[in-house]
Amino acid sequence: MLSKSEVKHIQSLAHQKGRKETGCFIAEGVKLVEDLLDTCSGQFVMIYATDEFVKKNYIRLQKTQYRVIDEHYLSKITLLQTPNQVTAILRKFDIVEPVSDADDWILALDGVQNPGNLGTIIRNADWFGVKTIVCSEDTVDCYNPKVVQASMGSIARVSISYQSLASYLPCLNKPICGATLNGCPLSSFKWPGSGILVLGGEGHGIRPELAGLLDHKLTIEGRGAADSLNVGAASAIFLWEMRNLFP
Amino acid sequence: MLSKSEVKHIQSLAHQKGRKETGCFIAEGVKLVEDLLDTCSGQFVMIYATDEFVKKNYIRLQKTQYRVIDEHYLSKITLLQTPNQVTAILRKFDIVEPVSDADDWILALDGVQNPGNLGTIIRNADWFGVKTIVCSEDTVDCYNPKVVQASMGSIARVSISYQSLASYLPCLNKPICGATLNGCPLSSFKWPGSGILVLGGEGHGIRPELAGLLDHKLTIEGRGAADSLNVGAASAIFLWEMRNLFP
Repeated sequence: MLSKSEVKHIQSLAHQKGRKETGCFIAEGVKLVEDLLDTCSGQFVMIYATDEFVKKNYIRLQKTQYRVIDEHYLSKITLLQTPNQVTAILRKFDIVEPVSDADDWILALDGVQNPGNLGTIIRNADWFGVKTIVCSEDTVDCYNPKVVQASMGSIARVSISYQSLASYLPCLNKPICGATLNGCPLSSFKWPGSGILVLGGEGHGIRPELAGLLDHKLTIEGRGAADSLNVGAASAIFLWEMRNLFP
Repeated sequence: MLSKSEVKHIQSLAHQKGRKETGCFIAEGVKLVEDLLDTCSGQFVMIYATDEFVKKNYIRLQKTQYRVIDEHYLSKITLLQTPNQVTAILRKFDIVEPVSDADDWILALDGVQNPGNLGTIIRNADWFGVKTIVCSEDTVDCYNPKVVQASMGSIARVSISYQSLASYLPCLNKPICGATLNGCPLSSFKWPGSGILVLGGEGHGIRPELAGLLDHKLTIEGRGAADSLNVGAASAIFLWEMRNLFP
C-alpha cells in the first residue's frame, strides 16, 4: 500500500516544479525501465512495480530499492493512459558541460516545445553517437515524462543542459551550423570536423538573435509542397548526413 | 449559437466510428486550416471560426460555408487543448489506387499505431514528393485528428489507402524494400528506379509474413547505444536517401 503523501510526491514529479524541488523524475513502462536499469541502475530512487515485473526482472532489481504494488495502486500513480507494470523514480543525471576544444559535435536546440519532438531528438542523437545536447532555456524540460518516454532510455546516454544559447554558443569557439529554410543545400555541404548544429523549434525555427550567429545555414532539399519538416524528422536527416563525423 | 445535435455531430468525428459513418473528418487550428483552404477548399463541409479568423481569411473563405462562433462555443467543439480560432469539417479525400506499372515509389506502413508518427510520415512523404502511402489495416486511421494535426496539411497532398499488405503488395509487381534492424547498410544500397518501401510500426517492426516478402532488407547504420529509431525519424532518413528517385 502507498501512503497519501507518497502518491502525492510521485504525482508532483509530473510537473517541472516538483522535479526542480526534488531533483527527481519519473520513468514508466516495462521496456523503458528495463533499459534504464541496464544503463544507469545507480540513478534509481524507488521502483513501484507489479509482481509480474519484479519476477521477470529479479536480477536487474538486485541493486535498487523497489516495492511491489498491485495494479490498483499503479493506476493511482501512473501518468500513462494504460498503466504498464512499473513506475520508477530516478535522480536527474549530472550535466557534463561541453568542452570547447574537444573534437566533437554538439547539438543545440532553440525553443523546441513539443515533448515528443525533444524525446525523438534525444533518441536520434543517441543512435548516431552525439553525446551532448544544449537547449535554450525555453525548450521543454528534458525530464518531462513525455520526453523521457519518447527518448526510450536514450536520456541516460546523452548529456543535456539548458543555456542562453546566444551568449553561450559563441564561447564554445566552434563553427555554428543551423537548419533554416533558405540556406545552402544540405546534400552538398562540406562539414567541418567539429562544430555545433542548431535546430529551431516548431513554428518559428531558429530565432533571429541566434540566426545572426550562424556560420553556415543549411536546408534539407525537398520536392513536394509541404512547407517545412517536423524538427524531430529534420534532426534525423541532419544526424544521418553527419554520421561519419561522430566518434 | 450551435445546436446540441451539431455539437454532438462534430464531437463524433473525434472517433473512427463517427468518421466512417459520415465520411468526414476534423481539422483545427489557424495554420492547418489555412493550408487546407489553399490546397483543397472543395473538401470543406463547414468551418466554425472566430471573428478574428474570418476577418483575416475573408478571401480564402469565399468558396466555403462558414459560421462565426465565439470562443465559448469553439471550446465546446474543439479537440485541441488550447482552442485555436477555427474548427473545420472536411470530406475525406478520394483514394487514388497505386498503379502497378508506374515508374514511382510507394511507401507502405505496417502497423504504425502512434498518430503523431503517422502524421510525421505523411508530412515527410509530402516534403520529398512521395504521392502514395499504403497502410496495413491495423495502422492508425489517417483521419484521426492527431494524425491530421501532425501532418500539417500534407494529408491533402498524399493519397493514403488501407490494405492487407501481405496480399496487396505483391500484386504491384515492384521490388519490395524494407527497414529492418539486421539488413544491408542503407548508405551503400543501390536503389531501383521504382519500388515499395515498407516501414514497420513502433515496437515490433515489420511483421514476419511481410518480412518474408522483402526483396531487400535495409538498416540505418547507427553508432550509439539506442536500440532503434522512431519510425517517423526512420522515414525521414529513408526518404532523404531516396530523394532523387521521386519525380
